[in-house]
Amino acid sequence: MSHNTRTLAGFLSALRYDDLPEAVISRCEALFLDWLGCALASKGMHPIPLFERYARLMGPADGRSQILANGERSSAYFAALVNGASSHMLEQDDVHNGAVLHAGAVVFPAVVAAAQDLGKSGKELILAAVAGYEAGIRIGEFLGRSHYRIYNTTATVGTLAAAVAVGKLLGFNQGQFIHLLGSAGTQASGLWQFLRDAADTKQLHIAKAAADGLLAAYLTAEGLTAAQNILEGEQGMAVAMSRDADPDCLVDGLGSRWTLAETSFKFHASCRHTHPAADALLSLMQREGLSHEQIAAVTARVHQGAIDLLKWEAPQNPYQAKFSMGAVLGLVAVHGQAGVAEFAQQAYSDPRVVDFGRKVRMRLDAEVDGAYPKRWLGRVEVVTVDGRHLLGAIDDAKGDPGNSLSRQELEDKFRRLVAFSGAVGADQAGALIERAWRLREALAVDPLV
Amino acid sequence: MSHNTRTLAGFLSALRYDDLPEAVISRCEALFLDWLGCALASKGMHPIPLFERYARLMGPADGRSQILANGERSSAYFAALVNGASSHMLEQDDVHNGAVLHAGAVVFPAVVAAAQDLGKSGKELILAAVAGYEAGIRIGEFLGRSHYRIYNTTATVGTLAAAVAVGKLLGFNQGQFIHLLGSAGTQASGLWQFLRDAADTKQLHIAKAAADGLLAAYLTAEGLTAAQNILEGEQGMAVAMSRDADPDCLVDGLGSRWTLAETSFKFHASCRHTHPAADALLSLMQREGLSHEQIAAVTARVHQGAIDLLKWEAPQNPYQAKFSMGAVLGLVAVHGQAGVAEFAQQAYSDPRVVDFGRKVRMRLDAEVDGAYPKRWLGRVEVVTVDGRHLLGAIDDAKGDPGNSLSRQELEDKFRRLVAFSGAVGADQAGALIERAWRLREALAVDPLV
Repeated sequence: MSHNTRTLAGFLSALRYDDLPEAVISRCEALFLDWLGCALASKGMHPIPLFERYARLMGPADGRSQILANGERSSAYFAALVNGASSHMLEQDDVHNGAVLHAGAVVFPAVVAAAQDLGKSGKELILAAVAGYEAGIRIGEFLGRSHYRIYNTTATVGTLAAAVAVGKLLGFNQGQFIHLLGSAGTQASGLWQFLRDAADTKQLHIAKAAADGLLAAYLTAEGLTAAQNILEGEQGMAVAMSRDADPDCLVDGLGSRWTLAETSFKFHASCRHTHPAADALLSLMQREGLSHEQIAAVTARVHQGAIDLLKWEAPQNPYQAKFSMGAVLGLVAVHGQAGVAEFAQQAYSDPRVVDFGRKVRMRLDAEVDGAYPKRWLGRVEVVTVDGRHLLGAIDDAKGDPGNSLSRQELEDKFRRLVAFSGAVGADQAGALIERAWRLREALAVDPLV
Repeated sequence: MSHNTRTLAGFLSALRYDDLPEAVISRCEALFLDWLGCALASKGMHPIPLFERYARLMGPADGRSQILANGERSSAYFAALVNGASSHMLEQDDVHNGAVLHAGAVVFPAVVAAAQDLGKSGKELILAAVAGYEAGIRIGEFLGRSHYRIYNTTATVGTLAAAVAVGKLLGFNQGQFIHLLGSAGTQASGLWQFLRDAADTKQLHIAKAAADGLLAAYLTAEGLTAAQNILEGEQGMAVAMSRDADPDCLVDGLGSRWTLAETSFKFHASCRHTHPAADALLSLMQREGLSHEQIAAVTARVHQGAIDLLKWEAPQNPYQAKFSMGAVLGLVAVHGQAGVAEFAQQAYSDPRVVDFGRKVRMRLDAEVDGAYPKRWLGRVEVVTVDGRHLLGAIDDAKGDPGNSLSRQELEDKFRRLVAFSGAVGADQAGALIERAWRLREALAVDPLV
């Protein structure tokens, strides 16, 4: 038996809603809204309908849990599965930089499906989600960077995060949480190999993490026993899947450090390596009152990773545009934002955006490169049409904990996401926003669409 | 793209029923019968009812596939899940020594559930099962012994074996098989950590392998794409999960070597390390016409692994008795067999068995130890009451390919297994045996119980 696992399980079991700081509760409501927008934005996008058909084939024709992309009912397992696939589809969901874990994408599909199945309240949902984030982020940090090099942490660790959230909803005691970690951990899987083929596997990973986590929790509630030291044991996760595991991470700051509040919201819909420069450019343009026509040249001073990844100089589709520094800076300069709708439409076809993109260069910057990956500094040099040389700089990319999104920005992002897919109309979007901000007051997690 | 993966997928796609040698077809029917007995024998045993309740909670109230332990109908996914849990419960199912894979425990739950769902024939079922065995055993050999040290191969590789079997039933082409291996391989999981706690995880492993493999196949049929080189790629299974992977194994003897025919049936219900000595003792007693009362002392000459594992000199329950050389030799000497029923009843309570067990010693034997693990030689020295010194020897343990079970022995084993749990009566057992021997003639895989 691992002391750390016992301590973590004890914390999860003892955690009460009244223990949560107000900032954690309200951040959880914001994360819920942000997740909901991401999941709804996937409506109709390949491969989500494949998962919907699978749920229809294998699941019950009705059920207490809801599939968000099509509004159908199913059992909790299939709602978690399909909504898991949906959550990460547009890659607009939250991320914890240290754990490299998209916790919301796995925790919310599982815990919302289970809350609907079990008739739990908004407060119970929040408490359970917080437990899932706190366990998942710490386990992700525990497995370290060597794990992430081969494994999709949101798939592997995500299974445990989802399991813990559902286990908390089920009111598990310390012993049950230890069994739960065992049953979830032995199911952890998800290899990065698919990235080389741009295959659909990321959706399978997230779907399965949410659903397998929920399965582990329901079976543990029935009495299934499991390994008592799945994290640190001699044939456990760290030995099998990591070379730099740090056991201290598992219990770091339990009860005082709230990792859920350390998560980043994604603001721009592009590759994350473009965000600091985009934010620095926006900041400079606002400060100087510049329009895109007044700019003659932009040099984004970046870290090496950005130069390696952002290869597209003349993108021809939304995917390429998200990996093009020119297209991203063109969108924020011309349209003021680079959201999912802008990438679907203007990023490679709007002549003003394309023209602006041609004025953009990248250059390796020693300060920016040295700070990465701990900090993502944004630095842009701008030459104006009238010959001025200006510098834009931000030290926290928009959405990071030090520069988080305002409620208004989160609402705008949500409205853009659901409008993009047409999943819900503007009125219903407003109602869902209202529900999210009052999640703690909800007596039940009623169907969302 | 891996040449081996492409070759393997091409073989799987091109394989036709008419390509199968008669010996492979009839062996597959025997493996089907043996699997069915193992699954039915699990009825009512913890943790099988937990999986049944989960299927009832999450699955449809009816469906075209059948859960064997309780006779209920569900969708193919849940039938594969629960029957997977059942298949390995008594550890009486077939095994491939080289791959350390219990192929039947994962292939049959998945392929029977899918055949019932899709209305496939007995011939189609046999062809699909053969494909699952041939792929799974080769992938198990590919991942090697280093994989097995940490991972339960029947869980990890089992996911791919089950997937391939269902993919064959669905008529996949080469490209679909490559996607299928990708989607199954990225779900592969299952750590041995639980063994230290004697936890229920083995049932979870086998259940999930069968069900996840089926899920991968159905989603691939819908069009889900996946990694093209999940086995050998830089972020694939071998890099993540093995240190001695041998790519040649993946395509070894495709079309000429039939690994399905290399599988071993389990005859005695005890730890496999007792089998050679038990067979040697039985052989000697039959040869000499000895009864247990005529034997004064037995020395089992064994390999070191047997001495390490078989610690129980005075077992107090069925589990301990299975790991007691004295109890096992006592059962075969007194009762002529050491099946599930004998372990549940006589192994530790029948005074004749207990007395006989006290006469048994183990001794390390250089020849036996040197041949292990390639060959499991059985050697026993017997001293009779009237003072004779006799030697019993077998070179292939009963059930191994060189000493396989006869039809009559397989039928007897099946009858003992189903009688043990009371899953079906004697008449129905006879009808099921008849169905298995005529599986190739079945127009559909109708409900089995």
